[in-house]
Amino acid sequence: MSATEELLTWGLPLGLRDVPAEAQHAACRHLLDGVGLSIVARRTGVADASVNVARGLGGPAEAELLGDDDAISAPAAALADGALVHGIDFDDTHAGGLVHATAVVLPAAFAVGQSVRASGADVLAAAVFGYEVVCRIAMATPHGFHAQGLHATQVAGVFSSAAITAKLTGQNLETATNALGIAGSSAGGLLEFLTTGASTKQLHPGGASMNGILAARLAAEGATGPSTVLEGPHGIFNALSARDADLTAVTGELGSRWEVTRITIKPYPSCQLMHVTLDALRTVLDQIPSADAVQSINAYVHPDSAPTVCEPADVKVRPRTSYDAKFSLPWSVAALIVDGDISVDTYDLDSVQRPAVGDVSARV
Amino acid sequence: MSATEELLTWGLPLGLRDVPAEAQHAACRHLLDGVGLSIVARRTGVADASVNVARGLGGPAEAELLGDDDAISAPAAALADGALVHGIDFDDTHAGGLVHATAVVLPAAFAVGQSVRASGADVLAAAVFGYEVVCRIAMATPHGFHAQGLHATQVAGVFSSAAITAKLTGQNLETATNALGIAGSSAGGLLEFLTTGASTKQLHPGGASMNGILAARLAAEGATGPSTVLEGPHGIFNALSARDADLTAVTGELGSRWEVTRITIKPYPSCQLMHVTLDALRTVLDQIPSADAVQSINAYVHPDSAPTVCEPADVKVRPRTSYDAKFSLPWSVAALIVDGDISVDTYDLDSVQRPAVGDVSARV
Repeated sequence: MSATEELLTWGLPLGLRDVPAEAQHAACRHLLDGVGLSIVARRTGVADASVNVARGLGGPAEAELLGDDDAISAPAAALADGALVHGIDFDDTHAGGLVHATAVVLPAAFAVGQSVRASGADVLAAAVFGYEVVCRIAMATPHGFHAQGLHATQVAGVFSSAAITAKLTGQNLETATNALGIAGSSAGGLLEFLTTGASTKQLHPGGASMNGILAARLAAEGATGPSTVLEGPHGIFNALSARDADLTAVTGELGSRWEVTRITIKPYPSCQLMHVTLDALRTVLDQIPSADAVQSINAYVHPDSAPTVCEPADVKVRPRTSYDAKFSLPWSVAALIVDGDISVDTYDLDSVQRPAVGDVSARV
Repeated sequence: MSATEELLTWGLPLGLRDVPAEAQHAACRHLLDGVGLSIVARRTGVADASVNVARGLGGPAEAELLGDDDAISAPAAALADGALVHGIDFDDTHAGGLVHATAVVLPAAFAVGQSVRASGADVLAAAVFGYEVVCRIAMATPHGFHAQGLHATQVAGVFSSAAITAKLTGQNLETATNALGIAGSSAGGLLEFLTTGASTKQLHPGGASMNGILAARLAAEGATGPSTVLEGPHGIFNALSARDADLTAVTGELGSRWEVTRITIKPYPSCQLMHVTLDALRTVLDQIPSADAVQSINAYVHPDSAPTVCEPADVKVRPRTSYDAKFSLPWSVAALIVDGDISVDTYDLDSVQRPAVGDVSARV
């Protein structure tokens, strides 16, 4: 039995009664967090491109996207929902897999759940399964997709979206295996936004959510995907990860180890790879009399994190966009010193362009 | 100027008057070939899953998919068209890039062309540009995407689809650059179907076509993609190719070298990596008195081709599915000996399961 089949054999019949209260609570908390973040994204307009494209796709009235009253096709709704949850980069993170789990779990669970008029309990059970799928696949090769230049959230996210859809639409093991096999061919998502500050990162969870649902629909119509999509010679671990994968992370302790309980809500709306640095700085912040008093700050950064939050140095010191700043450790450290706090407003474009923060950033 | 910007600076204003007759003729021939193949796919039902999923997406009446009278959204039509053109694996191939060019050019050109009511000349000019984009990007790293475990048709196809859409919708350089930058994040397509005989390969051109159009729509709505999506540190060549890329293949001799004229129409409805072997066998076929007379056949295969058409050996000798057989050099050689010819019917499931051919296949 392949790893995909093992996951599905466990997850397809999973009922809410099989899920411990702690895991149910965690899933509810993260879904609620995702809804809240989508409200911020609506207010700030950060995901408007995806919302407008989704509305343009239209289609049968299967699901409302977050914050809309008009229903469109479930894949289209999921395309927008992924961008809404992830848009301001304040959504939760599973550190072991470095994935933004809710951004790919909520869209499929809510859109497909609506389309089949699933009960709340069934949507929650499907979401719990989705959380396990995305977190476990990503943590099997820690930072391995990122080291290859790919965004783990999209790579692993297509599988959770397909798995949620397969479960909510009542697919059997064979069809669901095909669904995940097909979904693997939409695994991707380049990290090249780090070079130019482009907004593709915001788009990745929506793309993963939409394509995962489509994969499950293709499987339901008889298309087939490889059951060995994870561990096969041309599966995602071999083709898309720079590191070896540990399959036991995917299939071990199913039903007793709950990765959904190991997802963290972000304290700052920026890349979580720098949160430990910001936390450390907070503990000594009241000992810094003023930003001018800071001559230099040395931060020790994990070698896996440095390329993301410290390079290229010139862009990190003086970010060009909100996204640059959200992925800049030096600038975020400087903002915390200058402002005494970090909030959603910290990364507004006007805020990011303040010379006073840039000056301190150059000393980090 | 990035490679993407160079391509677009040339291709966005390209008019049919700038295209030599030879290249115009080649593009027409390949588009016509694609339409013909879609008729076969309709008759055999091989792309029904994609057609049904596309119809289910519905949406505004922008474009008819090949062989339908009802119009649906252009991305949905392109999803099905890609599968229709590529469905029986008889479509054209650009050998230098190992891509099925028409399967990703026709869907975007026809669907988006209909959606904006473009003239035939404009659709043809956009198609010519699309052919250059997909062929040139793929040939910059010959077999490099395949060596990584990925299907070059999908990897490079997302860019041609986005470029065609950008051109037909009149995008400027900046927006079109964002379109291709966004498209790069849907580059993927695992070769894992080779392990299990799954039908994902048929689905890749449709996925590339749909996601390329969506990328251009997202760019039109203000989303941004990295201009360095090809050559950047986390661009497609670094992230998705196992080999170094030669960027001059992408941007060299634009307007004087026409890769659209170097695409070949398949003589056999099977993987083109074995066609040279089949051609060689044909020259001596009349000297073989009967299949029983064949004791053994040794074929010398390029090391880049062997993993695709010769491995895993057991599946190649006795294919389980039509797709297995289409990618099996030993079985196809055996079928040519037993039947004296190779046609679409050769790869019918009933034909593939004939013990007589399998017996000869074991001797290759």
